[in-house]
Amino acid sequence: MKVLITGGAGFIGTHLTKRMLELGNEVISVDNFLLGMKENVDIFEGNKNYRFIELDISDTSSFCNALKKEKIDIVYHLAANSDIGKGGQRPNIDYNNTFKTTISVLELMIQNNIKNVFFSSTSAIYGDKLGEIIKEESEPLPISYYGGSKLASESFIYAYTHMNDLNSMIFRFPNVIGPNLTHGVIYDFYHKLLYNPYELAILGDGTQTKQYIYVTDLIDAIIYMTIDNNFNGLNIYNIGAIGETSVKEIADIVCDVLEYKNVKYKYSGGKIGWKGDVAKFKYDITKITKMGWHAKYTSTEAVVKTVQSLKERQT
Amino acid sequence: MKVLITGGAGFIGTHLTKRMLELGNEVISVDNFLLGMKENVDIFEGNKNYRFIELDISDTSSFCNALKKEKIDIVYHLAANSDIGKGGQRPNIDYNNTFKTTISVLELMIQNNIKNVFFSSTSAIYGDKLGEIIKEESEPLPISYYGGSKLASESFIYAYTHMNDLNSMIFRFPNVIGPNLTHGVIYDFYHKLLYNPYELAILGDGTQTKQYIYVTDLIDAIIYMTIDNNFNGLNIYNIGAIGETSVKEIADIVCDVLEYKNVKYKYSGGKIGWKGDVAKFKYDITKITKMGWHAKYTSTEAVVKTVQSLKERQT
Repeated sequence: MKVLITGGAGFIGTHLTKRMLELGNEVISVDNFLLGMKENVDIFEGNKNYRFIELDISDTSSFCNALKKEKIDIVYHLAANSDIGKGGQRPNIDYNNTFKTTISVLELMIQNNIKNVFFSSTSAIYGDKLGEIIKEESEPLPISYYGGSKLASESFIYAYTHMNDLNSMIFRFPNVIGPNLTHGVIYDFYHKLLYNPYELAILGDGTQTKQYIYVTDLIDAIIYMTIDNNFNGLNIYNIGAIGETSVKEIADIVCDVLEYKNVKYKYSGGKIGWKGDVAKFKYDITKITKMGWHAKYTSTEAVVKTVQSLKERQT
Repeated sequence: MKVLITGGAGFIGTHLTKRMLELGNEVISVDNFLLGMKENVDIFEGNKNYRFIELDISDTSSFCNALKKEKIDIVYHLAANSDIGKGGQRPNIDYNNTFKTTISVLELMIQNNIKNVFFSSTSAIYGDKLGEIIKEESEPLPISYYGGSKLASESFIYAYTHMNDLNSMIFRFPNVIGPNLTHGVIYDFYHKLLYNPYELAILGDGTQTKQYIYVTDLIDAIIYMTIDNNFNGLNIYNIGAIGETSVKEIADIVCDVLEYKNVKYKYSGGKIGWKGDVAKFKYDITKITKMGWHAKYTSTEAVVKTVQSLKERQT
């Protein structure tokens, strides 16, 4: 099978590429190295089943030209601005990198007659539900440019799927973490503490609670739902682990792993870390569980393993 | 008060312009005459409170330049490809005219520090609910490019509203009809029957059931919710009349008004009129009713009045 992975040099993209190659599939990986890293994909060079194209896919015509007449079985569309806080600074960051990339993918699918697409959506499409347990059919009211861009992407995927008889698998996942993380609160805390082991600045009041999923668990779910099982028409799943982890707990775990005992936390205060942030988050994952998948690691176990991987990479 | 109306030469736009001028407001009307008609807005020329700009607002920078530093109290964003069937032919019709126009409006709002926006959304964002009664919090799963473009527009409105402390009023309305209609099933049936009074081609099996709202009822609701009452933050309302009307009933009404007694209906067959069409549609309008608004005319009364207005215009 030949698969196209957009955002193929990114955090999730490199893990997915690795697994796809292990399964004996051909992989075309596309990335513009805005968040993706060259060192992440260099390890695949030389594999005869692997081809990398450096490209900004928000430019639809360049993208379609670069892949002209390429026969592809499934597109895994992961390309996005995954840094929600940064996206809040200017709406066009997410408009171009998170939304327009999706339009390019859909256009490529029409032009090349590609029938199957996996889309990495997000829990951020739901907005701030004030702790309400979120199901797939919960009303989506995103409050960040990132969440808005992902819901807008989904909107066009729905329409293209129906109008062109496509098969689409949409996963809405929370924070994905693990080896080779490039940004986010765990990454930040870890590097801030290496720089100053006595004090840690924490955005908000530390009680913000999110769900984290370990990247290999997510990759297992993707393979299970798009390769091991057939999918037809439009499919939407919340994907998550068991439990949630607060920002304060993350700080404690990072200090534990680094064996720093006298760190003073300095909270910026307030219920959220940045505008567009969601303070409390609870996910219903019954639908994917009924399909026979569940995450191996809880949210907090995923955090611990990720911090350990940061330490291992460093030593 | 100074208001900007996009799609100001369109069917709803001209009715809204008329009412706004009657209320003593200043109106800047923008249209590209793609669906809007010059003869509709010529009647306003000479009114000192009225200014018309011919422009394709999907081009964001031209739009922002044309309105540079203009102080506007509310934008009424009506510009869209309102012809769903036509939009099904190519995705870029709705992408440019229905979706990108919204991005332009949001960008203008940021650049000119405009705080209030009314957005004309649609029942088509819900997709095919198979007759289920649709509330505002029902899961939106559009199946047409038009519905997808409107939901994508809403997605960005949510995000911009939260990130920039805007006030937005989103109305999701079904088919709007009345004097000066430019397209749609009533318009089509009427003109087809004038051409051939013995036979009428009907898409689908005639049982497709939709809700129609009379345009003055919609304008009343817009004025009531955006001028008579303050609005803050994000507001979403289903707007509709009482009852629904089937395609067969519409054909009967048109024949009645035209006094054609021996028309043979030729059905194309199938449950829907075109790909992306929704066969059965039921709307819950409790939320807007609780705000103190209701439509004067039922769905079927609106159809009868509209057909009569077509006949009056002709004679």
